[in-house]
Amino acid sequence: MRELGGKVSNWGRWGSDDERGTTNLITAERIRAAASLIRTGETFKLGIPLDGDGPQPGGLRINPIRLMSENGQEQVLPGGFKWADDFVFMPLQAGSQYDSLAHVHYDDRLYNGHPGAGVTVKGADKCGIHTQADGIAGRGVLLDIARARGVDWLEAGEAISPEELEAVAAGQGVTVGAGDILLIRTGWRKKFVTDRDAAGFMAGEPGLSLACAGWLRERDVAVVGSDNWAVEVMPGEHPGGAFELHMVLIRDMGMTLAEMLDFEELSAACAVDGRWDFFYAGPPLQFTRGVGSPINPLAIR
Amino acid sequence: MRELGGKVSNWGRWGSDDERGTTNLITAERIRAAASLIRTGETFKLGIPLDGDGPQPGGLRINPIRLMSENGQEQVLPGGFKWADDFVFMPLQAGSQYDSLAHVHYDDRLYNGHPGAGVTVKGADKCGIHTQADGIAGRGVLLDIARARGVDWLEAGEAISPEELEAVAAGQGVTVGAGDILLIRTGWRKKFVTDRDAAGFMAGEPGLSLACAGWLRERDVAVVGSDNWAVEVMPGEHPGGAFELHMVLIRDMGMTLAEMLDFEELSAACAVDGRWDFFYAGPPLQFTRGVGSPINPLAIR
Amino acid sequence: MRELGGKVSNWGRWGSDDERGTTNLITAERIRAAASLIRTGETFKLGIPLDGDGPQPGGLRINPIRLMSENGQEQVLPGGFKWADDFVFMPLQAGSQYDSLAHVHYDDRLYNGHPGAGVTVKGADKCGIHTQADGIAGRGVLLDIARARGVDWLEAGEAISPEELEAVAAGQGVTVGAGDILLIRTGWRKKFVTDRDAAGFMAGEPGLSLACAGWLRERDVAVVGSDNWAVEVMPGEHPGGAFELHMVLIRDMGMTLAEMLDFEELSAACAVDGRWDFFYAGPPLQFTRGVGSPINPLAIR
Amino acid sequence: MRELGGKVSNWGRWGSDDERGTTNLITAERIRAAASLIRTGETFKLGIPLDGDGPQPGGLRINPIRLMSENGQEQVLPGGFKWADDFVFMPLQAGSQYDSLAHVHYDDRLYNGHPGAGVTVKGADKCGIHTQADGIAGRGVLLDIARARGVDWLEAGEAISPEELEAVAAGQGVTVGAGDILLIRTGWRKKFVTDRDAAGFMAGEPGLSLACAGWLRERDVAVVGSDNWAVEVMPGEHPGGAFELHMVLIRDMGMTLAEMLDFEELSAACAVDGRWDFFYAGPPLQFTRGVGSPINPLAIR
Repeated sequence: MRELGGKVSNWGRWGSDDERGTTNLITAERIRAAASLIRTGETFKLGIPLDGDGPQPGGLRINPIRLMSENGQEQVLPGGFKWADDFVFMPLQAGSQYDSLAHVHYDDRLYNGHPGAGVTVKGADKCGIHTQADGIAGRGVLLDIARARGVDWLEAGEAISPEELEAVAAGQGVTVGAGDILLIRTGWRKKFVTDRDAAGFMAGEPGLSLACAGWLRERDVAVVGSDNWAVEVMPGEHPGGAFELHMVLIRDMGMTLAEMLDFEELSAACAVDGRWDFFYAGPPLQFTRGVGSPINPLAIR
Repeated sequence: MRELGGKVSNWGRWGSDDERGTTNLITAERIRAAASLIRTGETFKLGIPLDGDGPQPGGLRINPIRLMSENGQEQVLPGGFKWADDFVFMPLQAGSQYDSLAHVHYDDRLYNGHPGAGVTVKGADKCGIHTQADGIAGRGVLLDIARARGVDWLEAGEAISPEELEAVAAGQGVTVGAGDILLIRTGWRKKFVTDRDAAGFMAGEPGLSLACAGWLRERDVAVVGSDNWAVEVMPGEHPGGAFELHMVLIRDMGMTLAEMLDFEELSAACAVDGRWDFFYAGPPLQFTRGVGSPINPLAIR
Repeated sequence: MRELGGKVSNWGRWGSDDERGTTNLITAERIRAAASLIRTGETFKLGIPLDGDGPQPGGLRINPIRLMSENGQEQVLPGGFKWADDFVFMPLQAGSQYDSLAHVHYDDRLYNGHPGAGVTVKGADKCGIHTQADGIAGRGVLLDIARARGVDWLEAGEAISPEELEAVAAGQGVTVGAGDILLIRTGWRKKFVTDRDAAGFMAGEPGLSLACAGWLRERDVAVVGSDNWAVEVMPGEHPGGAFELHMVLIRDMGMTLAEMLDFEELSAACAVDGRWDFFYAGPPLQFTRGVGSPINPLAIR
Repeated sequence: MRELGGKVSNWGRWGSDDERGTTNLITAERIRAAASLIRTGETFKLGIPLDGDGPQPGGLRINPIRLMSENGQEQVLPGGFKWADDFVFMPLQAGSQYDSLAHVHYDDRLYNGHPGAGVTVKGADKCGIHTQADGIAGRGVLLDIARARGVDWLEAGEAISPEELEAVAAGQGVTVGAGDILLIRTGWRKKFVTDRDAAGFMAGEPGLSLACAGWLRERDVAVVGSDNWAVEVMPGEHPGGAFELHMVLIRDMGMTLAEMLDFEELSAACAVDGRWDFFYAGPPLQFTRGVGSPINPLAIR
């Protein structure tokens, strides 16, 4: 893993102070070009609902708990005015979300050599999710692995190889290029919507094999997103390993990951007309020093 | 107010079950057209930072409290893997945010006649913010009132009339049309960034006069956003009144409001080349039955 | 149930404004008398730990989530001073706790006829847990049903009858009298500590039968506490019924319930010397308008 | 401060593993003796209400936010059963509370030499508040400094010397002895209740001078509590110093502090009959690894 990490590393590529990594690849020019992918104006939400029925089984992460502070009861205001407010308590990693580049590290270093010790009880002093606030938008490409395999979903532990990414892209007639936001449909979201088994959703997942890191690096993909919860296959390929692709992608390559997305409607629409690229607009919330952010990206075709 | 409300009402316009109101005006065709406003690919974040230094003085609303649940301490994992997670506790109305159409009501009715009693301790059974999840994106227009007046910011209590909206639009050489996301810069955000006085920020504000409701209705604006916290002028024009424009816009017209945005960088860029419209992408998070959502919209020029 | 409720009702007994119910039975005189039960000075905590390993399986209630806001990191203070602070997010009903008299109601009435509509999104306008703040302390009596039956724990669904309460008291050589805080050991806590099965803990429980309401009323017990989560047997005795003893005890009799306590150490000590009464000191936190409070009562022998 | 700390240190006194410090002085024998102080059976709550009107001005700490998750709305249950639940989000240091011995440290050491690095993002691995769960109860003594001075309250910055403690005790006809829970009334709570100025409450306070550490050590006091927020005078006696008495009492002596208590009613009752000692029962909640706990201690006379 460390060897692969060294090979695909982007440390220093955008300066020694850089905290944004591969989203630097989403240049203004590429955004401008991506605008031409908006042809019908149809929008697709890629986030999942934030409520008590989400995929968190409890433990380290819980589903969002939203509680009303006002609903009009006990209010006596001019004009009969009634207002409602609500609070939420939630992990920033509870549902559809970005992993900031401070989310994981090893050997005491974050992406670009920033010290691991900078992730304190106060949050990330470097690479916090707020550094991505002016994005993330650009060309999105959906690779529908489950559809290509002819299954509702891949099973937990089933790995997706670089060759399969290549083949599915070819089959769909789409290319994956520099600065793209690449979305991988494994069907894992469909499985959850079908069986509503949160513990099963989190117990493992189909996903990218470690070797995909090289493939993503060669193409200079900017962001990779998936409908599972960790992008990579779980259990991983190496017994005794843990989140190896996370470490290589986030810490070595500086790649922002998007997790727990929902591609069901988008995939159906793409399949109809065979057009698998679109404009993607998925700005994170600006949690200062946050290690992640909930999101609801839009795909606009 | 009730008379004006009746005149500008959109109840029934999109069917008796409609929960989305004026965002129905953002048609696919209009989104497609708005894509052509992306000319340079430059992006501008319109959200404010979510942290303890925000504009909430405490009381009914507080600034977001983000706390780390993991930062790597005490973790012993294969490969030296370290990970970090965080939780947030916040009002959904703490910073840059949308008011859902369930946020206010009067005479026991929400927008479109939905019962006010449906806003319970569990949230909004109708008009929750999740109903806007497939948006909000389209043509954005910024009217920079403070710049037109030649001031850093308007003072609290200074009202903006329909005539001024008209004049500023004309001065900027921009038109406001159907389905637009209209952004109003009062400078109130700049004041907060300058003096960091949260209590002052919330004690009052410059903003739209009640008469603007008619102007917005005539043009069929889809969403109105501002850099203050309630869009409308505070204290209001009618002694003894409270949030009258909220009631007319949200409850009678069915208009989603965007509040506490930051237009400082966008305004500066627009002023350079005199182009005041752009592509706006500001999807809310999908809080099921939520009466609002924090946002970080992007303006893309 | 309504018939039984009417028979054991304490409505009006302590005035039409009363919000405290049977804790009125804990008179100063009885507290004074209970002080003589402190003979060795040994203390026993009856609360359970508040952390992520508690008995909540998630869903409507979760285990407490305690997060550090400061631990000394990033602090540079005179004298090398370092300080630590923490926040908690938790249901007031997550662990060892009192049900306030506003916790349940039926037919639109709380205890003593207070309107059910007074329990709003803001909390309980009557019978909130804060009204019990000057207590709860006095004579405690432990009835160890599991020990009397010679089992580690009773099984879910096993009901405890008034006759069994009577017999166990007699066997232990203790009487239950007016103003007592009566503690019932079913072994359900021991089961949880043994198997750590939160879902199983909450799926049902052994507990008091509905008929115990009359027995408690005749003796004028002030508070009843248990090591299960709802005092009463679950599933209940009447198919299609729900929390019937809750309704009779809390709403009709005005009795404060204590739930999810731990009697393991106390029971062992009582068994050694055959003394089953003691001084009980279990003040609730003063959550204004709260419908419950976490507690850690002390038994002092 | 370090010199004084060394002189009054209790490190090693109760073994090298001890995490409880001076509460070890509350022996069973002393608790037994304290029971005789219960003469009338009158109880006095010493905690303050936990709600939005508390003394936290916002910033690092906020007042508790209690929100209803259920109030009966939308429930359709057998028997017309309605139930209510609530959640709280709060700093464990928001109101009446104990500082655990892990709350402060210096020179990388907690009380008894436990490593400061053990206070991580997960909490305190040593000296957490849960280690005090089998207490805190015993003889309480109130020294009413404000009453002795003939003022409603002392002003911020006014220090209380050991000589004054001695003189007030003598004037009240009470002695302070080993294992006592010593309560100091400065009137600071009365000031807050009078002016409701949270910012003023936290901006400074009257309190103990640094020299009181020696006096408390000589008498072997077990716990010291106060009606201010930090026990010690603020601003402190040494320009440039910070929380010096905290460091000496908690870190060197191993003394649990109780803060933000309310002695108004208790003081009035003690003044009537001139009896200033009583039974104190103030168990903390068992927050595992917590650095503090909210409390509502009872004084029983």
